[in-house]
Amino acid sequence: MIKGLTRAGIGEAGPINNFVELASRFGFGAVDAHGQELEEWIAAAGSEQVRGFLQEKQVRIGAIGLAAEWRQNEDAFREGLPRLVAEAAAASKLGVTACCTYVLPSTDENAARFMAVATRRLRLCADILEAYGIRLGLEFVGPHHLRTRWKHPFLQDAESMLEWIDTIGKSNVGLLFDAYHWYTTGGTAADIAKLRADQIVHVHINDAKDVPVTEVLDNDRLYPGEGVIDLTTFLQGLDRIGYTGVVAQEILTPQPPVDTAEALAARSQQAFKRVYEKAGLA
Amino acid sequence: MIKGLTRAGIGEAGPINNFVELASRFGFGAVDAHGQELEEWIAAAGSEQVRGFLQEKQVRIGAIGLAAEWRQNEDAFREGLPRLVAEAAAASKLGVTACCTYVLPSTDENAARFMAVATRRLRLCADILEAYGIRLGLEFVGPHHLRTRWKHPFLQDAESMLEWIDTIGKSNVGLLFDAYHWYTTGGTAADIAKLRADQIVHVHINDAKDVPVTEVLDNDRLYPGEGVIDLTTFLQGLDRIGYTGVVAQEILTPQPPVDTAEALAARSQQAFKRVYEKAGLA
Amino acid sequence: MIKGLTRAGIGEAGPINNFVELASRFGFGAVDAHGQELEEWIAAAGSEQVRGFLQEKQVRIGAIGLAAEWRQNEDAFREGLPRLVAEAAAASKLGVTACCTYVLPSTDENAARFMAVATRRLRLCADILEAYGIRLGLEFVGPHHLRTRWKHPFLQDAESMLEWIDTIGKSNVGLLFDAYHWYTTGGTAADIAKLRADQIVHVHINDAKDVPVTEVLDNDRLYPGEGVIDLTTFLQGLDRIGYTGVVAQEILTPQPPVDTAEALAARSQQAFKRVYEKAGLA
Amino acid sequence: MIKGLTRAGIGEAGPINNFVELASRFGFGAVDAHGQELEEWIAAAGSEQVRGFLQEKQVRIGAIGLAAEWRQNEDAFREGLPRLVAEAAAASKLGVTACCTYVLPSTDENAARFMAVATRRLRLCADILEAYGIRLGLEFVGPHHLRTRWKHPFLQDAESMLEWIDTIGKSNVGLLFDAYHWYTTGGTAADIAKLRADQIVHVHINDAKDVPVTEVLDNDRLYPGEGVIDLTTFLQGLDRIGYTGVVAQEILTPQPPVDTAEALAARSQQAFKRVYEKAGLA
Repeated sequence: MIKGLTRAGIGEAGPINNFVELASRFGFGAVDAHGQELEEWIAAAGSEQVRGFLQEKQVRIGAIGLAAEWRQNEDAFREGLPRLVAEAAAASKLGVTACCTYVLPSTDENAARFMAVATRRLRLCADILEAYGIRLGLEFVGPHHLRTRWKHPFLQDAESMLEWIDTIGKSNVGLLFDAYHWYTTGGTAADIAKLRADQIVHVHINDAKDVPVTEVLDNDRLYPGEGVIDLTTFLQGLDRIGYTGVVAQEILTPQPPVDTAEALAARSQQAFKRVYEKAGLA
Repeated sequence: MIKGLTRAGIGEAGPINNFVELASRFGFGAVDAHGQELEEWIAAAGSEQVRGFLQEKQVRIGAIGLAAEWRQNEDAFREGLPRLVAEAAAASKLGVTACCTYVLPSTDENAARFMAVATRRLRLCADILEAYGIRLGLEFVGPHHLRTRWKHPFLQDAESMLEWIDTIGKSNVGLLFDAYHWYTTGGTAADIAKLRADQIVHVHINDAKDVPVTEVLDNDRLYPGEGVIDLTTFLQGLDRIGYTGVVAQEILTPQPPVDTAEALAARSQQAFKRVYEKAGLA
Repeated sequence: MIKGLTRAGIGEAGPINNFVELASRFGFGAVDAHGQELEEWIAAAGSEQVRGFLQEKQVRIGAIGLAAEWRQNEDAFREGLPRLVAEAAAASKLGVTACCTYVLPSTDENAARFMAVATRRLRLCADILEAYGIRLGLEFVGPHHLRTRWKHPFLQDAESMLEWIDTIGKSNVGLLFDAYHWYTTGGTAADIAKLRADQIVHVHINDAKDVPVTEVLDNDRLYPGEGVIDLTTFLQGLDRIGYTGVVAQEILTPQPPVDTAEALAARSQQAFKRVYEKAGLA
Repeated sequence: MIKGLTRAGIGEAGPINNFVELASRFGFGAVDAHGQELEEWIAAAGSEQVRGFLQEKQVRIGAIGLAAEWRQNEDAFREGLPRLVAEAAAASKLGVTACCTYVLPSTDENAARFMAVATRRLRLCADILEAYGIRLGLEFVGPHHLRTRWKHPFLQDAESMLEWIDTIGKSNVGLLFDAYHWYTTGGTAADIAKLRADQIVHVHINDAKDVPVTEVLDNDRLYPGEGVIDLTTFLQGLDRIGYTGVVAQEILTPQPPVDTAEALAARSQQAFKRVYEKAGLA
């Protein structure tokens, strides 16, 4: 499993080439990026140069975010489609195979109606991504406070997300599986063992404070190994089902970190070293 | 538009051949039926004989109900599929082109999850029906008391049902459009004018008591023309958009009617005559 | 049915606004256009202005062509998708509801493999167009010389095209129905009567020389009423099934016409007048 | 990878319970079966008893054949659907997860039209199987003599089959990968390495005579290790991509084998032992 970074937890890493450079320096094999910054990078430097740079640095782009706005109204969704296509085209030139979006566990909309509309929209996004060899990863969100943050419950665990993925009915749609959400939904080793590697598009890693699980806040995360999530079980579970993709750190915090990107990358490197070793992984 | 009967409002009409006979005698061109009774009828009499009888009586089968149990758990759904296939096969031998099911406006399940599961199940039902040349009509249900009867809101009007139909994404899925639900969702002439005829799989007609629309009860219906629904607008609207299918009477009542089937069929014939004439239809 | 023009048969009609102007002047209610010229027109004049101009001239855009190259390799297809999205977005701003492409009756590729690939590609095109409220019209091509022009037979008539449309499985895909192809595939009144109006996305009209039908050349067409196609049956058939969309003239010729656009538009106006009157249409 | 048997190459193995018994006795962990014989077995013995028997014998059902006739006309296809549903229901009770059908490399039909129709039909089969947790495996057929056996070429290799699987667009559809067809299509280690384990639904193993590959006949197969196919590369390749499913022997021969089922099962056991050991597999 490839160690990766997102910008969440890394501070000011600068433009994408700097971020890649930084990740490379601290032993990471992947970074998550915005599709638009990839598009601009390619426009500025040429796709061959960018591919060469990534290869030299031994860093791949782990995933991009989903550009289309599928949560609001139809006009907003339509308006995002040209962006989605442009970003998918750019990302595919760099060999990116994952595009991700999160799904909140409650909504102010009529949940059934929103689900019907979202199914149609995400299926179209998956259709388009498929043409570029990219998979769509859907992230279920676990922290309990978000389950009642909006009026009606929405999908709240891996199981219901997998059912939705079945309904979307595209073979290029799977889970973004995040340690924080696995933990806050009471996930076990058995839950991971039930998954097939090909159901997982992307993985996020992080840690949680030692408070009752029902009180864990979504944007108050720790670096891997600094909290109470059983990341040994998490990593071993993923390894056992044959997942060989990216495990990207994502540390959402109430305030941006104050340390330099170097210091944070070094801290992240140590964090990964610790949890990987503890799990018996290289 | 073909005048049709369901058994709701007709009392004890006996086996399907008697029901067809009765409908024919009182000027109806269609009856709704259970798929299973068609299957048994064909098994007993032969499909050619049954087709001949229907032709002689100038009565077609307007629609059958959806046999598969799509609202409960997965095992129940699976168990219903052989029945669905058998009934579709039987119905198609009699030229039936519509199969219908209703969708309640609230649910005790997580509405998003139920929607995801129901989308997958109804798509499969539509796939199977399509192989037999049959369309699937989904009926939205309007009475307000049912919107809070169960814990979470579900689809509650024609507009959200049409969005769901888009999501199901099969060209053989459309609306079962019922005057009672049109009325109780505040439907207007404009709402009908926005529909295309090919979006309507089947139509139900009936009437509502003169109580505030928010207090109209689902199972307390009147015969067409005996209540306050503007059936002239309803029928003219359907005619104007080019709907030429069956308009079947469905009178749900708290107690079964006490009159004979003959008396009720005669009453229905008068009811149709009145509302069709008022709408300027043949 | 709205009388329409394509540029084929009209000579040098100039930029799109001139073409609309010309069409309007000679009594046409629609012109077919390239998506890209609509996009550029909107970029130059603003979509509100363009809509206003079209409304003032009482001319709609009948259909645009399908921008994505679905017939060649996967790279070419991918490269066309941003164009498709951009043109669909532009077209939808002008209320365009049809996008069309033709399907040749033979191919040098393995026909089964090409069909499999083309099905996937056109489904994605239809998915994207659907998001913009646009339908995809597929044109079967009738002239016999094209059936053996390439190595293997491909789809050669309306019936097999309708089967393909079923397979594509999107409710926004239908036929581009062209009088020339109807004639050269031996089409009859009964063949039109079997169609539903909602299966037809767009119509082309033209006429054929008085040679054996097997010798009719695809790019040697006449103006409506100047040849041997029974356009009375064609137009009456479409009218009877309830088609109310655009009937656009498309006259492919070995050499570009030498007359002025005005002269050709006048000739076309007369041609339409003749065949519409003969068919008893307004 | 689980060693399995089909009846092809085993002679008269008797009813399914005897066949399972025989397979178990000679060290096989799977047998392929007809859905109908499973259905009848369950009807006679009860599904719990059958499951118990299979568990006791340590034999699973590797795959069933696809009951629906998707190659002929629409009526034949429809008529097979009740059978498909019944067999899927029966098979799912025994934990069967694979259902397979072969695809001939040429056809007398218009290949494009047949492909369009077959895509729709197999998608429906996959839809139904999916409801029962069963995958559909499509087998490409390699022997060259079958490529010109019928009038028009159809799909002739793994690559085009995978394209078709993409087009069918169901995540439960994949390859039945047969050593004989891999060999006769010039398959290499690299071709297997490009596959993902989840793209393979089922595997067949056998061997080919030492004649030019273009002259290899489909129904003239040898037992594994008795011919010229590089089964070491074949098995290692499958193992390396993580395939852990059934590898079932299928020996089609011009005449039925004359030996007893015991003798043939023993010979098969030796054949598997030899090729597995040579490939360094348990």
